Amino acid sequence: MVGASATPGKIGHVILQGLMKGFRGAIYPVNPHEDEVLGLKCYKSVSRIPKKVDCAVVAVPAKYVPQVMRDCGKKGVRGAIIISGGFSEVGNSELEEEVRRIAAKHKIAVIGPNCLGVYDSYSMVDTLFNPRYKMERPRKGGISFISQSGAVGAVVMDWAGAEGFGVSKFISYGNALNIDEVDLLEYLGKDKTTKVICMYLEGTRRGKDFVKAAKKVSCSKPIVGIKAGKSAEGAKAVASHTGSLAGSARVWEAAFRQAGVVEAMSMPEVFNYARVFAEQPLPKGNRVGIITNGGGFGVLATDACVANGLLVEPLSKKTAAEIRRKVPDYAVVKNPVDLVGDADFHRYEAAINAMLKDKSIDSILCIVLFQTADIDSNVISVISEASDLAKKPIVCCAAGGEYSRLHSQLLEEAGVPTFSSLKAAADTLAAITYYDEFRDSQK
Amino acid sequence: MVGASATPGKIGHVILQGLMKGFRGAIYPVNPHEDEVLGLKCYKSVSRIPKKVDCAVVAVPAKYVPQVMRDCGKKGVRGAIIISGGFSEVGNSELEEEVRRIAAKHKIAVIGPNCLGVYDSYSMVDTLFNPRYKMERPRKGGISFISQSGAVGAVVMDWAGAEGFGVSKFISYGNALNIDEVDLLEYLGKDKTTKVICMYLEGTRRGKDFVKAAKKVSCSKPIVGIKAGKSAEGAKAVASHTGSLAGSARVWEAAFRQAGVVEAMSMPEVFNYARVFAEQPLPKGNRVGIITNGGGFGVLATDACVANGLLVEPLSKKTAAEIRRKVPDYAVVKNPVDLVGDADFHRYEAAINAMLKDKSIDSILCIVLFQTADIDSNVISVISEASDLAKKPIVCCAAGGEYSRLHSQLLEEAGVPTFSSLKAAADTLAAITYYDEFRDSQK
Repeated sequence: MVGASATPGKIGHVILQGLMKGFRGAIYPVNPHEDEVLGLKCYKSVSRIPKKVDCAVVAVPAKYVPQVMRDCGKKGVRGAIIISGGFSEVGNSELEEEVRRIAAKHKIAVIGPNCLGVYDSYSMVDTLFNPRYKMERPRKGGISFISQSGAVGAVVMDWAGAEGFGVSKFISYGNALNIDEVDLLEYLGKDKTTKVICMYLEGTRRGKDFVKAAKKVSCSKPIVGIKAGKSAEGAKAVASHTGSLAGSARVWEAAFRQAGVVEAMSMPEVFNYARVFAEQPLPKGNRVGIITNGGGFGVLATDACVANGLLVEPLSKKTAAEIRRKVPDYAVVKNPVDLVGDADFHRYEAAINAMLKDKSIDSILCIVLFQTADIDSNVISVISEASDLAKKPIVCCAAGGEYSRLHSQLLEEAGVPTFSSLKAAADTLAAITYYDEFRDSQK
Repeated sequence: MVGASATPGKIGHVILQGLMKGFRGAIYPVNPHEDEVLGLKCYKSVSRIPKKVDCAVVAVPAKYVPQVMRDCGKKGVRGAIIISGGFSEVGNSELEEEVRRIAAKHKIAVIGPNCLGVYDSYSMVDTLFNPRYKMERPRKGGISFISQSGAVGAVVMDWAGAEGFGVSKFISYGNALNIDEVDLLEYLGKDKTTKVICMYLEGTRRGKDFVKAAKKVSCSKPIVGIKAGKSAEGAKAVASHTGSLAGSARVWEAAFRQAGVVEAMSMPEVFNYARVFAEQPLPKGNRVGIITNGGGFGVLATDACVANGLLVEPLSKKTAAEIRRKVPDYAVVKNPVDLVGDADFHRYEAAINAMLKDKSIDSILCIVLFQTADIDSNVISVISEASDLAKKPIVCCAAGGEYSRLHSQLLEEAGVPTFSSLKAAADTLAAITYYDEFRDSQK
């Protein structure tokens, strides 16, 4: 940890503290002005560390970075995460070029500079310097996130932490000195703990390589991408931010489509898609079965599915008959199945089990309005047990105040993705359906 | 309260309990089988009530409703809220017609049947029969909501209660015996405590009257509408739900446009629009100023604004110079203004005040990433004070985990609409801008 600081709140303090909290390997603070930081012996330079060093985390002013990197090179350090800003992003391209030359000479793979670095929930390498009380860290899980913007990544990690979604690796790669989005994509494509890859991109210097790598990875695991700077004005903002060439919206859309990257239009969408990819099986087609205990929500869900190119077809006679046997006459046994306002968990059980067996239904959108008198938490058992056994995706929608939120959370914790917005639920089902179609087309 | 019940959990019990909790007028339980309910003297019939009765809340089985209505007519009751279901929605149109004839004969204005009824935060008439522990009630405020679906209304009220948004009246009008969406629109148009009207519609029997009434009301207060059943499949679901003729999507879009109704595409949008209408001034045009402490979010915000037809134009020289004087060199003083990751509240103050004075900026989208070390709650004072004085709308975006949520909530409570999604923030600014353009076009 080069630039380790004894002063609370300083970047070199927050990062060291974070590393000490979870990382189980040896940690060597480096700072020429300190003998000890946070109870660890502090070294004057990397070369004075007595043991082998695998990776240097560098958080010193930009002008000192070349010297640190030379030192790392001599020491045989092969990886560096350079947090420090003050390079090409502020017009200081010469300094960045110098660091690049040093890294090349010593064969050092570099994340950064000008980045938040890395959060890995498995090794607990955590270089994010946002204070832990302000930014939560997510639990272990299957989603990895590559971000050209540190801030965007930080917000998403914070949110994932609060929602309890599992993350494998987050990588903020900043100015991409010698590792860029294409390298990271290839790496995560092979990473065993990564089931879904999310990307926030402002641009790429390697368009063709990106499409090639993404297409290859997409065939084995889904990539969810958001392209910032699609509008002309947004592209100008990109130039002021990371200096990337934003490229035209249409070119990016075509590239994503060609590579099977599922495009998200907002950050909440990125993570909604990712968590459903991580938790649910893929649908075999685009036919959705809808269950509700409120008719209006059934109508809105139908509209939202159809707007996304999903099909809401009439129930098969067999499925309708099976549900009909177990629900009262005044329930509407069509698609949507409206179990009506006095539905209890038995009716949900009847509808969901019949739909699971029906081969003409590829995914299930299950709406539960917890405001009604006859719904209780038994419905959570019913849905989560169905979801555990299901070979088709099930997502839920439950909206409202505290009581509904608590129950949504319980559904989530039981492994059933639960949305407060029908549109979000339908968009997400459409996204995983689209990806399944891409995969099929590649066979 | 006709159908008052002594049994906890029964509709006639929940409603009576709700009325007793808030309503300050006289309440007379009616039930031929009880002498006392919840400590109140219970009457055998409406006609036996010794004093004048303004409104009857009716929650008895459908077959008894005609007799109750005749009794109300004789007693001179001029208003009724019929909660009971079992009429045209289950094919029992004759019974509904009978009740309609009785209501006409005695000149009784009827909400319902087959509805949740009314929630009025001012008079505290509350006939919603969802248990209070499952469904929160919103505080007093300027938003009123007319809903053809009781369930949709219940969810929205519950959510508004939990979020602390203020509501004036919620009316679930069910089968619209002799009061329909057009009547309610005209009523709320004149209602002094209603600043914004929201509508969930599946159809209308009076298309021309609806457009005429909506256009008149729109000239003085905004109407936010969501039309369910816009897809062919959704229209079928409408037929099974309320039996309305859903009408074609294009006809509804044209009707909304002509009448100045702001169309929302999802329920969260309905209320997002409504709360900004209720809390913020209207913009004078479509030029947005964006402030951020994370570059990526600035880019995404720009894209989201432009996608909505809003303009993100370069800052005027004067405004840029004014901000420049108060922020460090490495901040990006363009539009978006990127105050960068180490921004404190002073920088926000500089940017927001300069934008408020700039006549070439019509609304402000202010992004605050609370994950960063240098942001503290002082920024809430800065933004809310600016918002209090502003003659242009300010909305915020803050996303993340618990720390960010708490601060978002504080911003909300200080009167600044705060979104966790940039897209939602931009959509909302676009909605209020569209409405302002409609109003201008009518002058």
